[in-house]
Amino acid sequence: MARLSDIGEKGIVRSLVSMLTVSARLGPGDDAAAVELGDRYLVASTDMLWEGTHFHPRMSRWQRGWMAAAVNLSDIAAMGAQPLGLLLAMGLPADLDEGDVKGMVQGAADCCDAYGTDYLGGDTKECPQLVLAGASLGLVGKEGLLTRKGASRGDLLMMTGTAGMAAAGLLALELGIDENRAITALFEPQPRVKEGALLSASGVVTSCTDISDGLSTSLQELALASGTAFEVDRPSVPIGPDVERIALKAGKDPIDLALHGGGDYQLLFTIRPDGLDRVLDALGSDARVIGQCIGGNRNVLRSGGVRSELEPKGYEHFRR
Amino acid sequence: MARLSDIGEKGIVRSLVSMLTVSARLGPGDDAAAVELGDRYLVASTDMLWEGTHFHPRMSRWQRGWMAAAVNLSDIAAMGAQPLGLLLAMGLPADLDEGDVKGMVQGAADCCDAYGTDYLGGDTKECPQLVLAGASLGLVGKEGLLTRKGASRGDLLMMTGTAGMAAAGLLALELGIDENRAITALFEPQPRVKEGALLSASGVVTSCTDISDGLSTSLQELALASGTAFEVDRPSVPIGPDVERIALKAGKDPIDLALHGGGDYQLLFTIRPDGLDRVLDALGSDARVIGQCIGGNRNVLRSGGVRSELEPKGYEHFRR
Repeated sequence: MARLSDIGEKGIVRSLVSMLTVSARLGPGDDAAAVELGDRYLVASTDMLWEGTHFHPRMSRWQRGWMAAAVNLSDIAAMGAQPLGLLLAMGLPADLDEGDVKGMVQGAADCCDAYGTDYLGGDTKECPQLVLAGASLGLVGKEGLLTRKGASRGDLLMMTGTAGMAAAGLLALELGIDENRAITALFEPQPRVKEGALLSASGVVTSCTDISDGLSTSLQELALASGTAFEVDRPSVPIGPDVERIALKAGKDPIDLALHGGGDYQLLFTIRPDGLDRVLDALGSDARVIGQCIGGNRNVLRSGGVRSELEPKGYEHFRR
Repeated sequence: MARLSDIGEKGIVRSLVSMLTVSARLGPGDDAAAVELGDRYLVASTDMLWEGTHFHPRMSRWQRGWMAAAVNLSDIAAMGAQPLGLLLAMGLPADLDEGDVKGMVQGAADCCDAYGTDYLGGDTKECPQLVLAGASLGLVGKEGLLTRKGASRGDLLMMTGTAGMAAAGLLALELGIDENRAITALFEPQPRVKEGALLSASGVVTSCTDISDGLSTSLQELALASGTAFEVDRPSVPIGPDVERIALKAGKDPIDLALHGGGDYQLLFTIRPDGLDRVLDALGSDARVIGQCIGGNRNVLRSGGVRSELEPKGYEHFRR
């Protein structure tokens, strides 16, 4: 059998999803699962972070807890659901002190509080590395569930906020550049919970995911789930001035940070072509059209008259 | 501040519980949290297992997945709830192969199936150690929620099944004794999901927990949560013939395995003194009275006319 380092995270996830059958409305394979509960869906997701990959040494304990909560709440947001609560299992090295642990739990609890939900509880276990495994719960009306599957040719492709900010923060850290706003964006992700609920209520969204693994990778996930492909208009991809400046200092092209950098936790979604006014009414200038659904099976980046294949180059676990 | 190795798992959990306020019906500090959902409670819990502490090298991949699911479903059972689904976040070493991962997920999915619920999904992340963090969800009618708090003087103390089987399995492994039934009990815990629901429906249960950390430690948790104490009648503690035989071979007293060994996942509960017939009607000989609630703040072990303090000596993380 193939090693994980050969097939990568996306490969093993696809393999696992294909072996499981569930009676839930939506089982493994989306940002979260959905279980029928009367006239609503209970939405549930889990995301694990650990010291080596996810926590930069410069992150405070509070930021580690915040991040663990935020990335889990982002999955609820991507389903259009209102968060109902967060669980947090912590694997903790025995030489941590009580204050470290309290700091992390406070960060997670503060993040829950900021997004109108509860830190419901957790588990503490001894573990040589710091591992924080969150699980988030949410509720959404049956008509309002947003999934990765549903985009079709002609739909508009949109996203919230800007892309590349977290990647720029990581670059700033690597280069020792003093860029606090980007570094904070990397360390304290802001899940788009309110925006997810507004998109759900708009009634015009045909597919949705968060861009935690990078825009190009998340686009690929939407494309595979919906059985279609997208064209992204390069000049329309929203890139903030911090990203432009940091990329310039680093000698990088800002579009590469925006397309392939992870950690942004914006929402990437498609809407019916006649639904643009509704989305702009709900989200204002925070939402932008960045392309469209073109059918086929290859995502394309268009820059003026030039079209090139847009390959997923975001972060993937296991892949070497 | 104190190190985790000084204050132990119970200390840090109490410290964390005291800093958190939640609007949920029941937040951190019980087997699971409970959130109001119309006329029911959504019950949710998380439990993390990792290679070093929880998985014996002789466990198969399938058994590791089964165990991760089972210990999480046990928390739902202890609240009297019907399971609604399981999430499983996996931290995986990159040199595992696809078959290893599939084996674990199959074990978790088979456990869910055996207890009438769904494997809803999960997360895969690269991690130097194998870490499995489950989160379980359940539903229970508002009147049926079982918590650790509620035992009062005069209540009968009861448990399901027998005690010490998992500890005997561990002992057999350590001594290289061929005792497959006990070893299987250790590797493949059977959460008392049906029994939890029956106890919930009986209407006479005043407090409940599982005995995953050992009978004496779980008794202490019930006592602290309820603000009371218990007397355990030593001859009434149910000990199976496998435990007697393995203890004999190892030169140990079987009552020590039964009182202080972890990993049994039976339910420990108290009932109103007039409720015994109802419980025996529902659970039959699977449930036994092992003592009573005596008030005060010290748990006692009674053996004939001799009474001695029953201290919690179950497994505790971090404690050295």
